[in-house]
Amino acid sequence: MKRIADSTVRRLSLYLRFLEEFEARGLTTISSEELAARGGTTSAQVRKDLSFFGSFGKRGLGYSVGELASRLREILGLGREWKVIIIGAGKIGAALAQYHGFRQRGFRIVAVYDNDPAKIGRALDGFRIRAMSDLVDDARRDPVDIAVLAVPAQAAQAVADLAVRAGIKAIMNFAPQQLHVPDSVALKTVNMAMELEGLSFALTNREST
Amino acid sequence: MKRIADSTVRRLSLYLRFLEEFEARGLTTISSEELAARGGTTSAQVRKDLSFFGSFGKRGLGYSVGELASRLREILGLGREWKVIIIGAGKIGAALAQYHGFRQRGFRIVAVYDNDPAKIGRALDGFRIRAMSDLVDDARRDPVDIAVLAVPAQAAQAVADLAVRAGIKAIMNFAPQQLHVPDSVALKTVNMAMELEGLSFALTNREST
Repeated sequence: MKRIADSTVRRLSLYLRFLEEFEARGLTTISSEELAARGGTTSAQVRKDLSFFGSFGKRGLGYSVGELASRLREILGLGREWKVIIIGAGKIGAALAQYHGFRQRGFRIVAVYDNDPAKIGRALDGFRIRAMSDLVDDARRDPVDIAVLAVPAQAAQAVADLAVRAGIKAIMNFAPQQLHVPDSVALKTVNMAMELEGLSFALTNREST
Repeated sequence: MKRIADSTVRRLSLYLRFLEEFEARGLTTISSEELAARGGTTSAQVRKDLSFFGSFGKRGLGYSVGELASRLREILGLGREWKVIIIGAGKIGAALAQYHGFRQRGFRIVAVYDNDPAKIGRALDGFRIRAMSDLVDDARRDPVDIAVLAVPAQAAQAVADLAVRAGIKAIMNFAPQQLHVPDSVALKTVNMAMELEGLSFALTNREST
């Protein structure tokens, strides 16, 4: 398959959310214009985003809400359960361990790891914090799909290397640090400061009112 | 100014990070190809992104790292301090209150609010948690630039309305909930499950190896 840009995948996730709202309101069809308006994009962009994955909708009739939602869930890999571990039992790790939105989408947190002897063995939201040194063995016994890294920036690369060694093929990084992983591993970095920069940009470049 | 897409602003933030790495390594020029390679995009895209903000670089010589970095900081509104409040002193709020990356970029957290009587008045990472009912008066006395919402989904819209009433012009929402705010208010929603969907997509659509 053609390489799909992150921004396209992000829009697919957004379209799915709008479709689910539509479903909840009992609506059965939606036009690319309506999807575009909700997503702050153009109908041409919606059609282009969907065209990567085959042919949807009937000219003049729009998309079937149920069909498109179900196809998007499939495309996004949401038809199954993904095993997720959190590495780093600090405040961000703790916040993520109890985040309800994950479970609803099939992301099941199976374990939390840390390397601090004072934390290992203690309970965190129903998990007993495990030693980072057990990670590779644990994951070989019971494979993990996604590792969420909630460790300090200076530790992040070493922890990512460990996750790779454990055979984990997808990493979500919360450390403000550029990481390097093999091409076979999917990596996503969530940088909170970068998110805030979207707002400082908006505040700086607004039309003066 | 022409409306700039969120995805463009996100790339500007990314370019700035690469430029700062280049600066730290003592390099003085960079080509659009190098910036593109680091950002996983094309040099045409880099040139287009930058063209919104005037003319940069010399044909064949690339960009001056220092000049472009400083111009990007200006464009992103990073030349000054932004006053940020966190609303919601739960686990996500606590994680954000201690996030070091904010301060480095000029985002100064000035207060944390909650509406839970058991939390109000208690300390959270050097902040005394304030009552949500004080927010409007506080912000009128001492204006706030950005409100970060770390509250449950069902409370998020009411809290956003409160922030708007307090005169706050930018909201970062961590609740998995679509919010409505006036056009004059910049809104960004960070949805953790959506971030993970980028990874489940990658795991689902990878070439089989």
